[in-house]
Amino acid sequence: MLKIIKSIKILCYNYSMENKIKIGLIGLGTVGSGVFKTLQNFENIEIVKIAVRNKNKKRNIEGLDESIITDDAYEVVNNPEIQIVAELVGGIEPAFDLIKTAVQNGKHIVTANKELLAKHGEELFNFAEKHNKVILYEAAIAGGIPLIMPIKTILAGNKINKIKAILNGTTNYILTKMDTQDASYSDVLKEAQELGYAEADPTGDVEGYDAAYKITTLATIAFGKRVKFENVYREGITKIRPEDMKAANEMGYKIKLIASAELNRNGKADVRVHPMLVPISKTLAHIDYVTNAVSLSGHPVGDVTLSGPGAGEFPTASSVVGDILAIASEIGKTDYILPMMRCGHSENAQMIDISLTENKYYISITTQNSMGVIGRIGKACEENNISLASIVQKEVGEGNCAEITVITELCRELDMQNVINIFNNDPAIESVNSLIRVQI
Amino acid sequence: MLKIIKSIKILCYNYSMENKIKIGLIGLGTVGSGVFKTLQNFENIEIVKIAVRNKNKKRNIEGLDESIITDDAYEVVNNPEIQIVAELVGGIEPAFDLIKTAVQNGKHIVTANKELLAKHGEELFNFAEKHNKVILYEAAIAGGIPLIMPIKTILAGNKINKIKAILNGTTNYILTKMDTQDASYSDVLKEAQELGYAEADPTGDVEGYDAAYKITTLATIAFGKRVKFENVYREGITKIRPEDMKAANEMGYKIKLIASAELNRNGKADVRVHPMLVPISKTLAHIDYVTNAVSLSGHPVGDVTLSGPGAGEFPTASSVVGDILAIASEIGKTDYILPMMRCGHSENAQMIDISLTENKYYISITTQNSMGVIGRIGKACEENNISLASIVQKEVGEGNCAEITVITELCRELDMQNVINIFNNDPAIESVNSLIRVQI
Repeated sequence: MLKIIKSIKILCYNYSMENKIKIGLIGLGTVGSGVFKTLQNFENIEIVKIAVRNKNKKRNIEGLDESIITDDAYEVVNNPEIQIVAELVGGIEPAFDLIKTAVQNGKHIVTANKELLAKHGEELFNFAEKHNKVILYEAAIAGGIPLIMPIKTILAGNKINKIKAILNGTTNYILTKMDTQDASYSDVLKEAQELGYAEADPTGDVEGYDAAYKITTLATIAFGKRVKFENVYREGITKIRPEDMKAANEMGYKIKLIASAELNRNGKADVRVHPMLVPISKTLAHIDYVTNAVSLSGHPVGDVTLSGPGAGEFPTASSVVGDILAIASEIGKTDYILPMMRCGHSENAQMIDISLTENKYYISITTQNSMGVIGRIGKACEENNISLASIVQKEVGEGNCAEITVITELCRELDMQNVINIFNNDPAIESVNSLIRVQI
Repeated sequence: MLKIIKSIKILCYNYSMENKIKIGLIGLGTVGSGVFKTLQNFENIEIVKIAVRNKNKKRNIEGLDESIITDDAYEVVNNPEIQIVAELVGGIEPAFDLIKTAVQNGKHIVTANKELLAKHGEELFNFAEKHNKVILYEAAIAGGIPLIMPIKTILAGNKINKIKAILNGTTNYILTKMDTQDASYSDVLKEAQELGYAEADPTGDVEGYDAAYKITTLATIAFGKRVKFENVYREGITKIRPEDMKAANEMGYKIKLIASAELNRNGKADVRVHPMLVPISKTLAHIDYVTNAVSLSGHPVGDVTLSGPGAGEFPTASSVVGDILAIASEIGKTDYILPMMRCGHSENAQMIDISLTENKYYISITTQNSMGVIGRIGKACEENNISLASIVQKEVGEGNCAEITVITELCRELDMQNVINIFNNDPAIESVNSLIRVQI
């Protein structure tokens, strides 16, 4: 039985281990510190080695024995005592090689590395499977939100066919601030950078890479088919204007960066990250600031939404520790280990290119002189099989200009691109300001 | 390996079973039918016996072999072939005796019986533990929402200290309708009964029993201490008026029936079910109609909210089948089975009586003639250590009456009861219409 000290209690794990389970940590930054502190509460789990980048850095972590710290991460993965390695540094290399070395040395892996999983998940999982080891990664997607383990266990009787999710806290913070403060993207980004919610180079977040890494792995586990990262469509939030926020609000929507994955009737996967107008009747419309949320649709369960902190020292530690405890509870069994935790997807998902999808759209257009323009907009749409759900024209700039807001019915992406081309070549149309997809 | 037919896929369970797992169902009503239909998709799971109340009832369930149906449930629990019994009839007896007999006969149990778990959970779990069997009950609380298994597994590193939940779809439907249609409780109840959302005798739902059963078991597993149902405070929704809904909206709240469980600093448990004004900034304020939601707060995870369908044929089946698959994946192992799934809480929670708690309150008062009343309200509150956060007076009934709405700061329940007594004895106060607690 696992003995517990301090305030944390293991609830229903029933540990058959009699010896301490030996853990190695790679990384002692924000997440690593949270994991270290949380594991201090478990008497039968021992951290025997921690790899850091800079050994001489001053660290104020209670209970940390400096003698177990190394700046050579291979001392962790090659340590014969260690049974579970938690990789918490991120990026492709050296994480990729470290994990493979650890697996080869007989260790199970817990990782929060979304980029590595998205780009090399197939190779990693196959490699672990070959060595009869597992790689768990609850913390890599949506931080502290229970997601991957529930999909693998209590939702295992389901065929999940749709995911709509807010998986990036930085962009959700920026969009929420733009909405509530009627502020521009660049102003809010600056503020977010000052507060530490956005990095100095914000590309990974604001261009949707981070969310795309996460939805790649999430769709893979939810659909049971391997989704390739390079086939995931990606569009960021840098072009969203406060005017779009305002127009969306007036029509009953919120603009969110949505990571989306759907299986169509033929079993083909449509996986993407882009801004969307989300109807305020949906739970996702009310997920604000750095909170993350994942809505799953499947049969028999129907629609389920899981929300919570998508990042941060302790929320992420919750998931890393949850995975460590899950493995720890199985170590020492003589039988085939870890029945619930394997992931060998041999089948690749057939993917649909976004150009072949159907979507509903919001379009914002500025015209210099609106005489006849509404008619030409209507005609262009009609000739391209696009029905309009609504069209609103407002005078701007003392009546010299008009801003026209259009919401379409469901139509083909290719047809929409044609229409945008026509608009761009219409001399009366000064600019197509925004083209944002609308959630149905 | 479990082989899969039709469209459902097991994702990551890795079944070591080579023979079919044999299941017995007790109950073939709404939930039972959903479970039967869902299990049809799993080739290596075989339903060998189904107990029903009326054997002669016409059933239109594809693939149902009438010869396995019995009207004697003991034929299920005594069947030596059966390894897992799913009890889906509800109520105390005969369910209680059937489950104990099944456990005694070496079967694992999956149940959706919230009343039985709340009232006799301790005896049941101890009995199962003694026989080295498990009782899983994901479906008993919040239907299809992944909740119990995540608490037992991926959240196992947490100390959960607060739960706020909407656990009863019927009352949430009624409250949502009252809010959106400005309708009375009795009118909406009638409509809900006609639509099948409320029973002919709605007591179990509208008086909060159903939610109280669920929060009893949920708090027990989340806190790791046994909560006694008889110590759970319970108050229903029958006295909520459309006027309260309107007043709440104007102040930025929604009225919901909240099942709440908190551990205070001394580790004492405050568990209750009553209506609350929920700030619209909270996710629970946006959970409408029959949807259920559970917000958990703990360390290290922070705040997590899980929402989805709380009842219904298929959502409930998702959880029952999830539990069956979890057990099935462990059966046949030679080692100590089912490490994640046990629940032996030997420790009883120390409970706090509601009279000793502190709360924030909404009070609605009607006065015949308001001269001086506001002053006396203020004085009574002040003398009982109650600070007011806001007070609003509105004329009603052509100016003959005034309706006064008060929101207090946090204060003691006992002090509030004193003040309500004073109000009830004030000749100028015609009626204290409502006293509803406010979520902070």
